[in-house]
Amino acid sequence: MEIAEQVLQIAKKAKEASEKLAALPSGVKDRALLCMAEELLAKADFLKAENARDVAYAREKGLSGTMIDRLTLTDGTIEAMSKGLREVAALPDPVGKITSMWRRPNGLLVGRMRIPLGVIGIIYESRPNVTADAAALCLKSGNAVILRGGSEAIHSNRAIAGILQEVLRESGLPEGAIQVIPTTDREAVTEMLKLEDHIDLIIPRGGEDLIRKVVELSRIPVIKHYKGVCHIFVDESADLDMAVTLTMNAKTQRPGVCNALETLLVHRNIYEIFLPKAAEALERAGVTLRGCPRTCEILPGTMEATEKDWYEEYLDLILAVRVVDDIDEAIRHIRKYGSLHTESIVTTDYGHAQRFLQEVNSSTVLVNASTRFSDGFELGLGAEIGISTTKLHAFGPMGLEELTTQKFIIYGNGQVRT
Amino acid sequence: MEIAEQVLQIAKKAKEASEKLAALPSGVKDRALLCMAEELLAKADFLKAENARDVAYAREKGLSGTMIDRLTLTDGTIEAMSKGLREVAALPDPVGKITSMWRRPNGLLVGRMRIPLGVIGIIYESRPNVTADAAALCLKSGNAVILRGGSEAIHSNRAIAGILQEVLRESGLPEGAIQVIPTTDREAVTEMLKLEDHIDLIIPRGGEDLIRKVVELSRIPVIKHYKGVCHIFVDESADLDMAVTLTMNAKTQRPGVCNALETLLVHRNIYEIFLPKAAEALERAGVTLRGCPRTCEILPGTMEATEKDWYEEYLDLILAVRVVDDIDEAIRHIRKYGSLHTESIVTTDYGHAQRFLQEVNSSTVLVNASTRFSDGFELGLGAEIGISTTKLHAFGPMGLEELTTQKFIIYGNGQVRT
Repeated sequence: MEIAEQVLQIAKKAKEASEKLAALPSGVKDRALLCMAEELLAKADFLKAENARDVAYAREKGLSGTMIDRLTLTDGTIEAMSKGLREVAALPDPVGKITSMWRRPNGLLVGRMRIPLGVIGIIYESRPNVTADAAALCLKSGNAVILRGGSEAIHSNRAIAGILQEVLRESGLPEGAIQVIPTTDREAVTEMLKLEDHIDLIIPRGGEDLIRKVVELSRIPVIKHYKGVCHIFVDESADLDMAVTLTMNAKTQRPGVCNALETLLVHRNIYEIFLPKAAEALERAGVTLRGCPRTCEILPGTMEATEKDWYEEYLDLILAVRVVDDIDEAIRHIRKYGSLHTESIVTTDYGHAQRFLQEVNSSTVLVNASTRFSDGFELGLGAEIGISTTKLHAFGPMGLEELTTQKFIIYGNGQVRT
Repeated sequence: MEIAEQVLQIAKKAKEASEKLAALPSGVKDRALLCMAEELLAKADFLKAENARDVAYAREKGLSGTMIDRLTLTDGTIEAMSKGLREVAALPDPVGKITSMWRRPNGLLVGRMRIPLGVIGIIYESRPNVTADAAALCLKSGNAVILRGGSEAIHSNRAIAGILQEVLRESGLPEGAIQVIPTTDREAVTEMLKLEDHIDLIIPRGGEDLIRKVVELSRIPVIKHYKGVCHIFVDESADLDMAVTLTMNAKTQRPGVCNALETLLVHRNIYEIFLPKAAEALERAGVTLRGCPRTCEILPGTMEATEKDWYEEYLDLILAVRVVDDIDEAIRHIRKYGSLHTESIVTTDYGHAQRFLQEVNSSTVLVNASTRFSDGFELGLGAEIGISTTKLHAFGPMGLEELTTQKFIIYGNGQVRT
């Protein structure tokens, strides 16, 4: 079968399945998820064997150690996947929730009810656990999912999806609910992105190049974030010990993720005291600094930052540092160089806290807390399918509700429009 | 200046303006809107003169009477535009509303606050009143707008926008808040749709061909509906007089709009009584029927519907009619041929009403009411910028809230992630 035809068949099957999924009672979905959680554990040996094929190929191709780490399934990562499914089963079902209802002067009762989006396409790179996570969140929210993982994880992804599909079959649920594109040919992605009549949403997860390509080609709405250039602004009135603690946590607790700190902005009235304190702690943790002229003056030996550094998502133990004249300059810097992801102010000044929350329109804006909290679990959404810096539909961490939309439901008794 | 450069400059100016607009107090926006409402009336003669140039050209080009009707500005339509602006001024400001807030176990206070989307591009056809309506809704919701109307209305659109911009200048608001693409060259649209870093949302309003072209070319998220193939299902238990009244209202009150009825589905146990009653009323109103075989049998002389008719948005005094065996067949028909716009059931059966509301996932689903209520004003949103059958972001009629997104705001006191 030609690739275009193959992808179309998958999409049609997904759309058919989505109509059944939309009407499923929560209990049925939850039982299937719990069963999937058990089956992943029961078939751990099979998963590891299939995964070994991918890992061997990755070594042959000379992929980096980090990449191979992300790709490798161990008993630990399989247990984590299984636990993830049990957690999703325990979350409240967003489907059918009536979020508001009001009466019109003519007696019509107008409400808004949450319904699944329909069919969701996930395009992702090497981490095979995304296969189970994304499938679980889509199933729970009543959506069919089409998974297109990286070629380096194809055997692992197929194996995981195979186990999930077997549970679908045994539970009497439509198999089209969870499908993996079986080919690694890139044409499959191009074809998938054309199917706007069959697929409702595309979520790309991976590097910026992958995501830009998807946005360019897609006729289907895409929710994405390109990168996370997150800022902390240490205000004049900040508790400086707190500022050091937050900076350290945001930069070093997990430097390779999108909500890690990339640029530190420091008020000019305190930088001479604060920066040496912060630099000492950062240096001990192995962080290299790139500074503005005032930073380099107070911290001799610091590499000078170039214009490019302010745009940079290092995803590494590197931090750009800039001294600013006031909160206005901090906000201007964030607007110019930021990525609409996550920004935090450290301050004891009530007015500055409120201004920062009002005027910085990134997807997550914090006062006196680490940027690392920009995460679906940490914010209490119960799950996370991704983070959006697209302002449409969802902005920031996306949980189950963000995988639904709302229709209007209207109870009348014969009203006509005049 | 080259067109690409010209459009980029407009978009940059809009983005700059949007940052100021986001922080404006409601009162400032409302005063500007009221001032614009007055200025449109004060300059009615100028508007009619500019509009006459468009109308003369349209006649020369041989545009249809309906098209010329839509294009023409009269004292009445100018008064209506002005009233529209005053109504928008009176609506509550969605910006800054905190829709929910909760405390996390670690003490973080997490909330969601409505903020403007940023820059909105509206691509529309001949009706110049859209220029004022869309500009007002965008300004009220704190968004900058870039308007690209049809070439046949270019003088009217420029004149309206010119008046609004003068008020912006006099009120000290950024002129980039409301801009019209000054050229009618199609390249301008192509260039505009590439500017994903400057424009946050595109709303196309017009024929299906225009909208499909926009979706194909755009890298910016698009909210749209292609067409409204709206259904009424007359259930076995329906109050037949009510069913006739609702059918008549939905089909004939304004046949050229997207929430008008296009296909009538009738339960087989009542069609022999209902259809002759309905046909009599419809015929009196000048409606032509296209029927399924059973319809044609009970209403001799009716033209037989083809498969194509079930997909058709007539926007005219034509109605497709199909007898179905039960509610399941009605729902299947709507899923297969519908456009996710608006569907209504006429029934006295409690269970069928609930099933229809649950299982039909169109953007507006009604019981015992006319499809014509699928409208931002009628549903109580206070305004309407368009109707979405895109399931992302907004689904159904879109008011001011749908021109905003929500950011997470977080109050902490030193929390770090562990």
